[in-house]
Amino acid sequence: MQIVIIGTGNVASVLGRKFVAAGHTIVQVVGRNSTAASALAYEWNTVSTDYLSIINQQADVYLLAVSDMALPAVAGELKLPGKVVAHTAASVPADVLKTVTDHYGVFYPLQSIRKEMTALPEIPVFVDGHDEKALTTLQQLAHSIWPGKVVQATDDDRLKLHVAAVFVSNFTNHLYALAEDYCRQEGIDFTQLLPLIQETANRITTISPAQAQTGPALRHDSETIQKHLAVLQAYPHLQALYKTLTSSIQQFK
Amino acid sequence: MQIVIIGTGNVASVLGRKFVAAGHTIVQVVGRNSTAASALAYEWNTVSTDYLSIINQQADVYLLAVSDMALPAVAGELKLPGKVVAHTAASVPADVLKTVTDHYGVFYPLQSIRKEMTALPEIPVFVDGHDEKALTTLQQLAHSIWPGKVVQATDDDRLKLHVAAVFVSNFTNHLYALAEDYCRQEGIDFTQLLPLIQETANRITTISPAQAQTGPALRHDSETIQKHLAVLQAYPHLQALYKTLTSSIQQFK
Repeated sequence: MQIVIIGTGNVASVLGRKFVAAGHTIVQVVGRNSTAASALAYEWNTVSTDYLSIINQQADVYLLAVSDMALPAVAGELKLPGKVVAHTAASVPADVLKTVTDHYGVFYPLQSIRKEMTALPEIPVFVDGHDEKALTTLQQLAHSIWPGKVVQATDDDRLKLHVAAVFVSNFTNHLYALAEDYCRQEGIDFTQLLPLIQETANRITTISPAQAQTGPALRHDSETIQKHLAVLQAYPHLQALYKTLTSSIQQFK
Repeated sequence: MQIVIIGTGNVASVLGRKFVAAGHTIVQVVGRNSTAASALAYEWNTVSTDYLSIINQQADVYLLAVSDMALPAVAGELKLPGKVVAHTAASVPADVLKTVTDHYGVFYPLQSIRKEMTALPEIPVFVDGHDEKALTTLQQLAHSIWPGKVVQATDDDRLKLHVAAVFVSNFTNHLYALAEDYCRQEGIDFTQLLPLIQETANRITTISPAQAQTGPALRHDSETIQKHLAVLQAYPHLQALYKTLTSSIQQFK
């Protein structure tokens, strides 16, 4: 397919590279950051512009990989009747694009993709289309580059999936970061915990996380909990989080 | 080595099985739960008792794999001069065993081991010995069965490692459980999130979790955060946790 990519960030960079590798043609890169846009255009052997007004009108698919906040303004400047236009945002309804074309949709990878990724992770990509043409085209495009599942999901599902993803990815990663920081301050080697982190993530592929729960909170082992809170005396923020999450585990049923 | 195992829970079951597989001899299983003790004795081709008073005095190593709370009482009933005696608890000092023998120590796997595990995970085991004999013997024993690293760690290190492990394992697993529950209630397939969970755990083997952080909290994307809080309206507990962890990410430096 002939594709125009709008945006020069992580998602634009990684998807563009995969489109090229799969034999699609990127006919133009559009980005406010003209340095970034021309770098991507060079990589993909195409042209770039920083003006939405001179967007190439001849492509099959237009991918708006810009920030959630920028989407309404970018959509407001575009008229692409007859074309398939999709955005890549979790929490923005597809119909932010309804004035651009009738064939609008969404192409949302369940993951913050980073430029440095050479391989796409095998996470699902969630696609949706306002009409059959948009849906079919975006599904085809997804299947041509995506190593994981291609799943149709509504605006509502996508928002809920994003909320769940924040819990299992952003928040868990933050717990890793807090533990790493604590280990560093206490002179403990954080990398000793990596196999446990892997094991915790792997375990729930065979049993549900509710069944997999262990630890002093679940056992109501108040002696150990008190020792842990004492050890965290110098870290009031960790102490507060420890209490909050311990009580959350104990209330969970 | 000739080993006596005191306790019949998860750690006792899994370690005993591994000792037998490595060619050690379990000369006795001691447990208050006589059904569990005789089942393990049958599996390991040995004898069991529920009386500490008739413990076999001829073994090389005695492993107290009982709950943290039971340790002082069990230790109080044992006199094993000349023998190597170790407990398996994270948060209990080694010297809870000082009246049992001079050769006391600790054999602590950084993980809640479950009976069902056929293979030991490649997490570290932390050993310590009050004297050279205890330390050397326990290190040998660990190397004979343990697939991961064998690391010497003091009482203090062990307690701190346990606190960090609670954050990266018990608390992250709880976030998985909360997300699973939320998905179930919203009719979303939680297993779609498993590749993301794996990816989040894998990523930090190459970059630090502080660098790996992404998401609306880090971006201070208040529009998305407000949408997520609105979606969680019917889940006040999740909403409160979302706010707490979002603000923790934003304060982290």
